[in-house]
Amino acid sequence: MQFFSSDFKLGILGGGQLGKMMLYETRKWDIQTKVMDASAEAPCKIACNEFVQGSLMDFDAVYDFGKDVDVLTIEIENVNVDALEKLEDEGITVYPPTKTLRTIQNKAVQKLFYTDHGIPTAPFTRFAYTSEIEDSINNGGLSLPFVWKSAQFGYDGQGVKVVRKMEDLKELPNVECIAEKMIDFKNELAVVVARNAKGEVKTYPVVEMEFHPEANQVEYVICPARIDDAVAQKAQEVALKVSEHMKHVGLLAVEMFQTKDDQILVNESAPRPHNSGHYSIEAAYTNQFEQHIRAILGLPLGKTDSKVAGIMVNLVGAEGHTGEVVYENIEEILGMDGVTPHIYGKKQTRPFRKMGHVTIVDENMVRAREVAQQVKETIKVVTKQ
Amino acid sequence: MQFFSSDFKLGILGGGQLGKMMLYETRKWDIQTKVMDASAEAPCKIACNEFVQGSLMDFDAVYDFGKDVDVLTIEIENVNVDALEKLEDEGITVYPPTKTLRTIQNKAVQKLFYTDHGIPTAPFTRFAYTSEIEDSINNGGLSLPFVWKSAQFGYDGQGVKVVRKMEDLKELPNVECIAEKMIDFKNELAVVVARNAKGEVKTYPVVEMEFHPEANQVEYVICPARIDDAVAQKAQEVALKVSEHMKHVGLLAVEMFQTKDDQILVNESAPRPHNSGHYSIEAAYTNQFEQHIRAILGLPLGKTDSKVAGIMVNLVGAEGHTGEVVYENIEEILGMDGVTPHIYGKKQTRPFRKMGHVTIVDENMVRAREVAQQVKETIKVVTKQ
Repeated sequence: MQFFSSDFKLGILGGGQLGKMMLYETRKWDIQTKVMDASAEAPCKIACNEFVQGSLMDFDAVYDFGKDVDVLTIEIENVNVDALEKLEDEGITVYPPTKTLRTIQNKAVQKLFYTDHGIPTAPFTRFAYTSEIEDSINNGGLSLPFVWKSAQFGYDGQGVKVVRKMEDLKELPNVECIAEKMIDFKNELAVVVARNAKGEVKTYPVVEMEFHPEANQVEYVICPARIDDAVAQKAQEVALKVSEHMKHVGLLAVEMFQTKDDQILVNESAPRPHNSGHYSIEAAYTNQFEQHIRAILGLPLGKTDSKVAGIMVNLVGAEGHTGEVVYENIEEILGMDGVTPHIYGKKQTRPFRKMGHVTIVDENMVRAREVAQQVKETIKVVTKQ
Repeated sequence: MQFFSSDFKLGILGGGQLGKMMLYETRKWDIQTKVMDASAEAPCKIACNEFVQGSLMDFDAVYDFGKDVDVLTIEIENVNVDALEKLEDEGITVYPPTKTLRTIQNKAVQKLFYTDHGIPTAPFTRFAYTSEIEDSINNGGLSLPFVWKSAQFGYDGQGVKVVRKMEDLKELPNVECIAEKMIDFKNELAVVVARNAKGEVKTYPVVEMEFHPEANQVEYVICPARIDDAVAQKAQEVALKVSEHMKHVGLLAVEMFQTKDDQILVNESAPRPHNSGHYSIEAAYTNQFEQHIRAILGLPLGKTDSKVAGIMVNLVGAEGHTGEVVYENIEEILGMDGVTPHIYGKKQTRPFRKMGHVTIVDENMVRAREVAQQVKETIKVVTKQ
C-alpha cells in the first residue's frame, strides 16, 4: 500500500508542537493521519484527519487508538509501551520499535544500555529509591557533588537535579533514580540520526548548544557546531554507534558532552524529532520532521546537509508573567533577515514555559549568530498588560 | 490586535492547493483561519480552524463568509468582487484590494491597464463578442494568426487559443475577448512582487519557464532564470512598475515574455501566490506563502533571496489515465538528493490535471537541472492497474 493512498493511515501518539510540525509534512504528501492527545486543546487537533482525546499512558486508550492505523509513531516517549507491544504483536507497525522505547523511557536502563554496548557515557550508579543514596554516600560508594536523575519521566530537564550537599537530597522524590558523575564539559553537542526500516542510516551535522554565561541555560542551538572536524567526526561516530545498537526506526537525537579533553560522552537520546533539530526546517535540505516520516514509512532518507548556517532560539515564557500570552516585538524580529518565528499555539504563558522557537539562517555563521542575539534581546514572551 | 491573538481571524476564499500551502504558514504562527470553498472535499478543509462550504461567485455566500473576519484574502481571483466591495465598505480589510481584483479579473481591462500605464505588453484588440472578430479580419483591422483570450475566467491556460485560420474561430465561445499579437519570444519569465499595506515592496528573483522542445508545454520553472543580468534587471523593473500602479497588497506574480530582441512584454499578472513561486518553499529565505501572509497582515516583508538554486516541475495527470490516482515511482524520486514532492490531495486524476509539484534544489544549477530531468522522466501520475 502506498503512503498517499486513502486506505493508508498514520497514527501519532501525542498532539503537541512536535506532532504539529510533523503534520505539515503529512499534509505535503497527503498522508491520512490520526492523532491522540490528552488535551482537547492540543495543537494537532486541526491539520490531522482524525483526532482522539485520550491519555497516552492508558493501556486501553493507546490500544484502541492504534488498532486501525497502518503505521504508529510518537511525538513524546512517555506512552503506554505495553499497549504498543500488543499492537506490534497484532501486526501494527510501531516506530520507534517498542524495544527502543523501553530502553529510552527509563534513564537507568538507558545508561546501562550505553555501558553494555561500549558507548562512552558519564559514570553513574542506579538506585531503586532515592532514599538509598544517603547510605551509599556514608559508605563511600558515592561522593558529592553528583547529578541526580529520576529514572522515569525525565522529559525536558524535569527530574534532574544537581546534589551538592546532603540536605539537597531531602527535596527529591523517593523514586528509582541514578546518581551521575558531574561532567566538566566544554560543549554540549547533539547529532540527529535517521534510520529507516531497511536499515538506511544518515546523520545530520553536529549541533552545538551555546549556554548563557551566567544563567547556565541553553540560549542557542547552532548548526554546524563551531568545533574541530576531528571532534565533530567523533561525535557523529558515537551517535551512529548508539543508532546501530538501538536499531531504532525514525529519528534518534543523541545528546552528548564534549569534555575539556575532547572526549565525547553520551548524555541521553530521544527516539523522535527533537528540539536540537528544529533548525533543520529552515536550514537543511530535508527537515527532521519530513525525515522522520520518510524513515518510518520505509522511504529513502533525504539529504541531511544544510543549505545555510542555522541557529535556533527557544521562545520561553518570561519570568514574572503568567496568563494569556503576548509575543512582544515579534514584528521587529520579522523585520530581520532570515528570521522565522514558530508559535506553538499555547494560549497561556508561565515562566520558562516553551512557547515556540525562532530560527535564524544566513550564509554566514558569524552574521547568523549576531542576528540570533538581536532576536534574543528583542522578542519577549509576556502577558497582556 | 496582534495576528497571533485568539481574537484575530484570517479569511481565505478558496480552499485548493494554494490555500493549503498558505495554511502551513498560518499554523506556524498560530493564526486563526476560516476558509470557504465550493467543494466539501477541498484540501483546506483540514488545517483551518473553520471551514464553510459555499460558492466563491455567490454574493451572499462571500458576504456572509467575510463579515466576521479581520483580514480577508483569496487563493484564486475568480470570486464575487461585489460582495468584497461591500465588505471593504463595512470596514473589513480585503487584500488584494477589490480594485486590483477588478483590474485583473477581466483580461481586456488588465491589458488596457498595462497600456494606460505605459507598461509594455503585446498589442491587442478588445471585442465585446468573439463574433465581431471575423468582420475585423475582413476589414483589415486584424490579421491572422493571433492569440484569442476570453476576457473572463481565464484561469490556468483555459480560455486561451491560437487562431491560425478563420475556421478556428468557430470553435470559440461567443464572449468578451481580446485578440493579441503572437509574440515570437525567447523566454517566458516571471517575477513575484510582494507589497505590504505600508507600501514596503520586495521582488523575488526572475524565474524562467523552460518549455518542452516539441510539446510546447512548460516543463520546468527555474530560479534564478538563466538570462543576462541586464534582462533580469529589466524584468524586475517592469514587474515593479506593474506593482506600483496596481497598488496591490500581498503578492503579485507578473508573467512576461522576453522577445528575440530582449524586450520585456507583460503577459498577465495574478494577485496571489503563484505556480511560478512554488520553488520558493524549498529554495528561498522566505517562501511565497509566508510572504503573502506577512504582506496582508502588514508585517515586515521577509528576505526574497534564494539559499540555493531551485527548479519546479508540475505533476500533471498522464494521458490515457482517468480515475483514482497513483504516483508511480514516487519512492525513486524521494531517493534523489534535494527532491521534494508536494501532493495536492486530489483523489482523481485525468490527463493534464495539476495534481502536485516537485521541487529540486541544489547549490549547483547545472546539477539541479539534471536531477529535474531525472524526476520528470521517473515519476508518472497514473491510475491504479
